[in-house]
Amino acid sequence: MATMQGGRHTRDGNRTDLVSALRAVLPAGAVIAEEEAMRPYECDGLSAYRQLPRVVVMPRTAEQVQAVLRLCHGRRVPVVARGAGTSLSGGALPHRNGVLLSLARFNRILDLDPFGRTAVVEPGVRNLAISEAAAAHGLYYAPDPSSQIACSIGGNVAENSGGVHCLKYGLTVHNVLRVRALTIDGEWLDIGSQALDAPGYDLLALMHGSEGMLAIIMEVTVRLLPIPTSAQVVLAAFASIEDAGNAVAGIIAAGILPAGLEMMDRLATRAAEDFVHAGYPTDAEAILICELDGVPAEVSAQLQRVREVLQAHRAMALRVAVDEAERRQLWAGRKAAFPAVGRLAPDYYCVDGTIPRHQLAHVLRRIADLSREYGLPVANVFHAGDGNLHPLIMYDANRPGELARAERFGGDILELSVRVGGTVTGEHGVGVEKLDQMCVQFGALELQHFHAVKRVFDSFGLLNPGKAVPTLARCVELGGMHVHGGELPHPDLPRF
Amino acid sequence: MATMQGGRHTRDGNRTDLVSALRAVLPAGAVIAEEEAMRPYECDGLSAYRQLPRVVVMPRTAEQVQAVLRLCHGRRVPVVARGAGTSLSGGALPHRNGVLLSLARFNRILDLDPFGRTAVVEPGVRNLAISEAAAAHGLYYAPDPSSQIACSIGGNVAENSGGVHCLKYGLTVHNVLRVRALTIDGEWLDIGSQALDAPGYDLLALMHGSEGMLAIIMEVTVRLLPIPTSAQVVLAAFASIEDAGNAVAGIIAAGILPAGLEMMDRLATRAAEDFVHAGYPTDAEAILICELDGVPAEVSAQLQRVREVLQAHRAMALRVAVDEAERRQLWAGRKAAFPAVGRLAPDYYCVDGTIPRHQLAHVLRRIADLSREYGLPVANVFHAGDGNLHPLIMYDANRPGELARAERFGGDILELSVRVGGTVTGEHGVGVEKLDQMCVQFGALELQHFHAVKRVFDSFGLLNPGKAVPTLARCVELGGMHVHGGELPHPDLPRF
Repeated sequence: MATMQGGRHTRDGNRTDLVSALRAVLPAGAVIAEEEAMRPYECDGLSAYRQLPRVVVMPRTAEQVQAVLRLCHGRRVPVVARGAGTSLSGGALPHRNGVLLSLARFNRILDLDPFGRTAVVEPGVRNLAISEAAAAHGLYYAPDPSSQIACSIGGNVAENSGGVHCLKYGLTVHNVLRVRALTIDGEWLDIGSQALDAPGYDLLALMHGSEGMLAIIMEVTVRLLPIPTSAQVVLAAFASIEDAGNAVAGIIAAGILPAGLEMMDRLATRAAEDFVHAGYPTDAEAILICELDGVPAEVSAQLQRVREVLQAHRAMALRVAVDEAERRQLWAGRKAAFPAVGRLAPDYYCVDGTIPRHQLAHVLRRIADLSREYGLPVANVFHAGDGNLHPLIMYDANRPGELARAERFGGDILELSVRVGGTVTGEHGVGVEKLDQMCVQFGALELQHFHAVKRVFDSFGLLNPGKAVPTLARCVELGGMHVHGGELPHPDLPRF
Repeated sequence: MATMQGGRHTRDGNRTDLVSALRAVLPAGAVIAEEEAMRPYECDGLSAYRQLPRVVVMPRTAEQVQAVLRLCHGRRVPVVARGAGTSLSGGALPHRNGVLLSLARFNRILDLDPFGRTAVVEPGVRNLAISEAAAAHGLYYAPDPSSQIACSIGGNVAENSGGVHCLKYGLTVHNVLRVRALTIDGEWLDIGSQALDAPGYDLLALMHGSEGMLAIIMEVTVRLLPIPTSAQVVLAAFASIEDAGNAVAGIIAAGILPAGLEMMDRLATRAAEDFVHAGYPTDAEAILICELDGVPAEVSAQLQRVREVLQAHRAMALRVAVDEAERRQLWAGRKAAFPAVGRLAPDYYCVDGTIPRHQLAHVLRRIADLSREYGLPVANVFHAGDGNLHPLIMYDANRPGELARAERFGGDILELSVRVGGTVTGEHGVGVEKLDQMCVQFGALELQHFHAVKRVFDSFGLLNPGKAVPTLARCVELGGMHVHGGELPHPDLPRF
């Protein structure tokens, strides 16, 4: 094992030496060092950012992961964990001096307990595979990011993923009971239990959304729920965004918790309708899709109330799916909205911010103003129930300056979200994408605490360096941080 | 301002000097130094532990709290925050060298936004006062610890309090959107937002259940919910604990999320019936009280399903409250269960642990065995839906050794909870009460991480020292910690 000396992120001899050392602790085929073979790992879902790592490793056992971590810890080599690589914020972007640690081979469901309603899974298990395995027992795993066919549960924990149903069923953090993780020096950390509350500081919540920067998630115990025996969808069309926004507020105010409550604006609705012919009204300024689930009598009762609220908020048209086929058809448009908008322009940039629900109409008006100012069209698709916006900014990467303009536009939307009381993420994480906006969201003291928490787990800053939490220096340069007389507010805390 | 030198928790000159310094920064009447006047603060709800502080302070403004914190930080004087003092685990027990910081005067509701459905409140606001203020708008604050008339929201955050309705509506952490807190050196930390997800490490969750050891909570933004338009209660009696336990599992497995699902054993049922005449069947081995809430049609639909499940699990008798008066009567017995059991013995010790639901019958049998072994009767009252046990161990403090025996019995129950996959707390926190059981719940690496997280916020260990997280030395002495060759597992982390 390597010695413990050395600086931060120093290159340790030449690359060949690191590769040889990894080959010595891993089986044949688990170390990928050839440039072409590493290409598939150079980016994640945020493909505007690309970087080859020094080397890719694909261990099969926890002991092998421990060996990789100890070796990297000893040599001060950065480690970037990767699940399915579906992150939309660059969370799995490799580090140029680092090891890209693929957990794709950890794809086994270790235990499925229908009585206790839990599943214990390895980090590389696909989100949907859990529900598929649980279906035989009438159970499923609730969080459903749109990438759920591909994305893995380890990444879901790292990004605290949501999905269409998180309004009712919560984010990943609300559906995970326990995590077993390896620290950067290869020790097991066992966090959480099967109980609702746990003593000690809430390290389980801390692990969620930590973007691979605190520990390597090796085992996740998830909560399973009974598959609802009944689900109903109602589609409503509105002549104005304000009416649709008020209807969302009205449904929630009526004490109804829909399983999903989605809004699309005129442009997104038309694009979806042209693409999949879901039967959406293309003359509406906005549509709402509201799903209710539960036992049949409960669903009918809620449906009646929702219809009343929608009508009270001047819905131009209401359509309730009469059968499962129509229900799926109504969802098909929403689910195809991103690729549908993708057909309208060479490229699009999906923004992800969250605002208080009652700010919906105001924020959408501001986005329309910005669209005119930047000269870039935008289609709005969002999880209206929880205020999670996904404006899709259309641009052409081949036109000089358009990508940068789209990114500035996206940044403006996120800063607007903060100003109205929201945040710069909904469910896609910060990654490399939103580092600058973090300077708007947080003050120096909060950022210092983030960095200090990071040091508790990873004192040399080796796990996924450069992601999620900006350095204070970056924020100061951006002008987003108030520094009085050159002094940061908390001199006791370590500086980064 | 005092200088920054000095060791940990050193006495800084004599007590008079500290009192004078506090009087210099606080208005008249805000510093209590006379022994008799400090008596009301010597314990919280865990009255078996008592300790006078060096001095009690009752500031009225945030600036005064900052002045107290800066003074204590500079002099390395411990600070114990206290809300209403209703903690059942000794979380607000004073430190003999420390300042007891009462936040009772911070009792204002700063903002109530019926449209955004949030309230911004000071830490000393009573839990129930929030719902009372929100009632005019048809809203309420969901977490309802049984002390809700008295307990304050700051303490609720510190202990991550639950209540009868937390099965459906979650713990405090699930109902708080934002916290503004003061660090030990008097700086403002602003955590959370009005959005579902937040970027950065989840410091908001970290603050919940941190028992006043990370920061002083000064402002809490809570989520308000619409008051359910309908609520129904059904009471079921069972001939065995197993049947009752299986019925609980059956209700949850049917996909029903009751607003409350409480179980009481024969002894608790009889005590409650004798005390408040709720109409409970005293020949049952166990009773279940199940509350359903929502819109009327939804509640009727759920009620029908619950009746079917209860009958399928051999309920001997079923009773559905026909009106609001009967509903309140059925709850009255449960709510009076603790004082009712208190009438059966000079003293009782309320244990608080959580187990996986399917372990209910097994754990109750073991508790009955232990009751015989220790020669102390026990009545069981619990939040069955979320597996939160409250065995009430009866004893007589005047008989030598009985308190110690009751505490050992309680400790055994908590350790049993851990062994079956649960935890040593449900909703009462760790405080000074469960420090030893934390050594059973966690390994050395997890405890080291807790201590390291603590240091991020409070590097000198001044906030509520000696609570919630045991020192590794304590665990080693208890024999509850595996130490190999004298070496703790994570030499990089600071030792405590």
